[in-house]
Amino acid sequence: MKPITLTTDFGLQDWFVGTMKGVIQGIAPNAPVFDLTHGVPRGDFRAGAFALAAAYRFFPRGTIHVAVVDPGVGSERAAIAVRTADYLFVGPDNGVLSWALARERLREVRRLENDRLFLKPVSQTFHGRDVFAPVAAHLARGLAFRRLGPATKDFVRLKWPTSGPTGSRIRGEVIYLDVFGNAITTVAREHLDRHPRARWRLSVAGEQILPVVNCYSAIPAGRAAGIIGSSGWLEIAVYRGSAVQALGLKIGDPVELRVTG
Amino acid sequence: MKPITLTTDFGLQDWFVGTMKGVIQGIAPNAPVFDLTHGVPRGDFRAGAFALAAAYRFFPRGTIHVAVVDPGVGSERAAIAVRTADYLFVGPDNGVLSWALARERLREVRRLENDRLFLKPVSQTFHGRDVFAPVAAHLARGLAFRRLGPATKDFVRLKWPTSGPTGSRIRGEVIYLDVFGNAITTVAREHLDRHPRARWRLSVAGEQILPVVNCYSAIPAGRAAGIIGSSGWLEIAVYRGSAVQALGLKIGDPVELRVTG
Amino acid sequence: MKPITLTTDFGLQDWFVGTMKGVIQGIAPNAPVFDLTHGVPRGDFRAGAFALAAAYRFFPRGTIHVAVVDPGVGSERAAIAVRTADYLFVGPDNGVLSWALARERLREVRRLENDRLFLKPVSQTFHGRDVFAPVAAHLARGLAFRRLGPATKDFVRLKWPTSGPTGSRIRGEVIYLDVFGNAITTVAREHLDRHPRARWRLSVAGEQILPVVNCYSAIPAGRAAGIIGSSGWLEIAVYRGSAVQALGLKIGDPVELRVTG
Repeated sequence: MKPITLTTDFGLQDWFVGTMKGVIQGIAPNAPVFDLTHGVPRGDFRAGAFALAAAYRFFPRGTIHVAVVDPGVGSERAAIAVRTADYLFVGPDNGVLSWALARERLREVRRLENDRLFLKPVSQTFHGRDVFAPVAAHLARGLAFRRLGPATKDFVRLKWPTSGPTGSRIRGEVIYLDVFGNAITTVAREHLDRHPRARWRLSVAGEQILPVVNCYSAIPAGRAAGIIGSSGWLEIAVYRGSAVQALGLKIGDPVELRVTG
Repeated sequence: MKPITLTTDFGLQDWFVGTMKGVIQGIAPNAPVFDLTHGVPRGDFRAGAFALAAAYRFFPRGTIHVAVVDPGVGSERAAIAVRTADYLFVGPDNGVLSWALARERLREVRRLENDRLFLKPVSQTFHGRDVFAPVAAHLARGLAFRRLGPATKDFVRLKWPTSGPTGSRIRGEVIYLDVFGNAITTVAREHLDRHPRARWRLSVAGEQILPVVNCYSAIPAGRAAGIIGSSGWLEIAVYRGSAVQALGLKIGDPVELRVTG
Repeated sequence: MKPITLTTDFGLQDWFVGTMKGVIQGIAPNAPVFDLTHGVPRGDFRAGAFALAAAYRFFPRGTIHVAVVDPGVGSERAAIAVRTADYLFVGPDNGVLSWALARERLREVRRLENDRLFLKPVSQTFHGRDVFAPVAAHLARGLAFRRLGPATKDFVRLKWPTSGPTGSRIRGEVIYLDVFGNAITTVAREHLDRHPRARWRLSVAGEQILPVVNCYSAIPAGRAAGIIGSSGWLEIAVYRGSAVQALGLKIGDPVELRVTG
């Protein structure tokens, strides 16, 4: 039985995630189910797309990743599943899957239109429980992918808000604030690796100029700096403190890197 | 091995839920254990009873539902287990099980008095770990229900605070505030279905008059409305906002529905 | 497959704990993994050591306990695993394991230096995912303990900040504030049991003098008192209230017990 991960904005305060697991347990009784995160800011499918992209590859091949950040639930937005060389992905077609998919070799995309797989009656507001959980459970127990619905090539791809390196400059933005107060940006290790010996300076929101360092202990006491974090993206951090609070950062703040040496 | 669900007011901040799972793992090593919610407001067994009633039926037949919202722990309150046509329920006899049980066909009620099943020494303050977790684990691995203790007919049934339809009127109250800011009421879909073609108006706390709509997108921008939520109860919602904040709602606020057309 | 528990300061808001479970699932697909707590205050390895000591023994023999409260990650601090008569423990060598270990019969201590077991490349900031999770997973599927790295006798042992009974006096401190507002102290049931018939009075922070009672319902209405809590330590509690708020308690506050009768 394949493992399933869940990424949602439902929180853990109420019973919503619990009922998704109940539905899965009813269909695929031995499938291991893992919480990737349920703390995505409500309705923020870009933050959900980032969390999924940051975490999905730490699960073994064959894992079914379900992401439900779905402000358009009950509207005309489609629901999709995507098979890549290594994983299956299931969620609304609003881009929440797209940043993970951008890192994978795509094999097949299907629209979730086989409603015999759904929990009936399908509620208008909770497709996590009524559509995505049962579809993932059927896949976990071996349902053929083509049974989900018609094949398609189209799906919503969010733009990755980063440009460069253009000359000696990279532009991106703050995409996620973690619980430690680190502000994670859209600039990846690979961006910096194209100038392997360069030294970089980082400006945030057009104002604050920060050094880019190699390890937390190299952050000057009481200062902020840029550092490649554990998931492979440049983050703005304060050693044993909160960069978000210290610098007043928020999601969407622009960042720019320039080679200085 | 039967699945077990946990509904408590212990939160996830400390190790309390973890130790319940450790005790279960020691007795029933392969039992799948699911968190229904641990976010019930402390000691609010009515909110716990509602969460259980909203969620339990999404788990497969045979599931053992444990609910521990237990302000009377250490006092003379009894502990019970209930077998219904489809499920087992375990918890203190303070009503926390009763709203789920009201929807089930009862088969057998037993008082938990066989203390050979308990974790020794039984603490005075944490029967979740010392009584309810081990009893559920023994049931998961197949212990005969009659071994739990003496049969009884009596148990605490909380009154469901809803009346009607009386003529064209239904009265209920706000019973749960979810993390999205929806105020869930005690009025169920079935109440409204007795006037299948009626149009309803909803008054909250004797003042605010709201429409009742069929889908979130029908809520007028910036307004609140009544809508049947994903668990089957009427809730007061604001599209992409918090009705709780917008209207200053709290648990216990009276609601009244009247047919208007 | 042996069960694994996780004790960290990562919170559940982000995907950090999820990726640890993904790494474990990839190595030891059937290992049950339990959250002991992820709510340890950030970097507070004493609070983490206390949570582990309070909870680990409720899991069955053979369980692998992983504790990652690791403010020194990326520095020269060692990583260790410890085999005791009943359990395995894995974590940074900063004392986070030591209060649980003080209650166990030690068999063998190894430094984690076999980097073939690690997830590559090992990040500088997230050894929970890259070192401790994979080592625990390999142990769960049966790796010989000696394969982890060289044996050692040394490891960091935190001092248990309690003295006595000296004559009729015990001194300790507040070590943990739980979600209910109880202030848990370092004074254990065993300390009080050495004067089995004594009556005690408790002073907190040199000022407040409280009674020591046997059950919550014996706490005078609206007052605080000392009581042995469910994990076996003396805690300062207010019945259905928060002692932390009522008395303004914080971690590190000194407590003193004296026999009064």
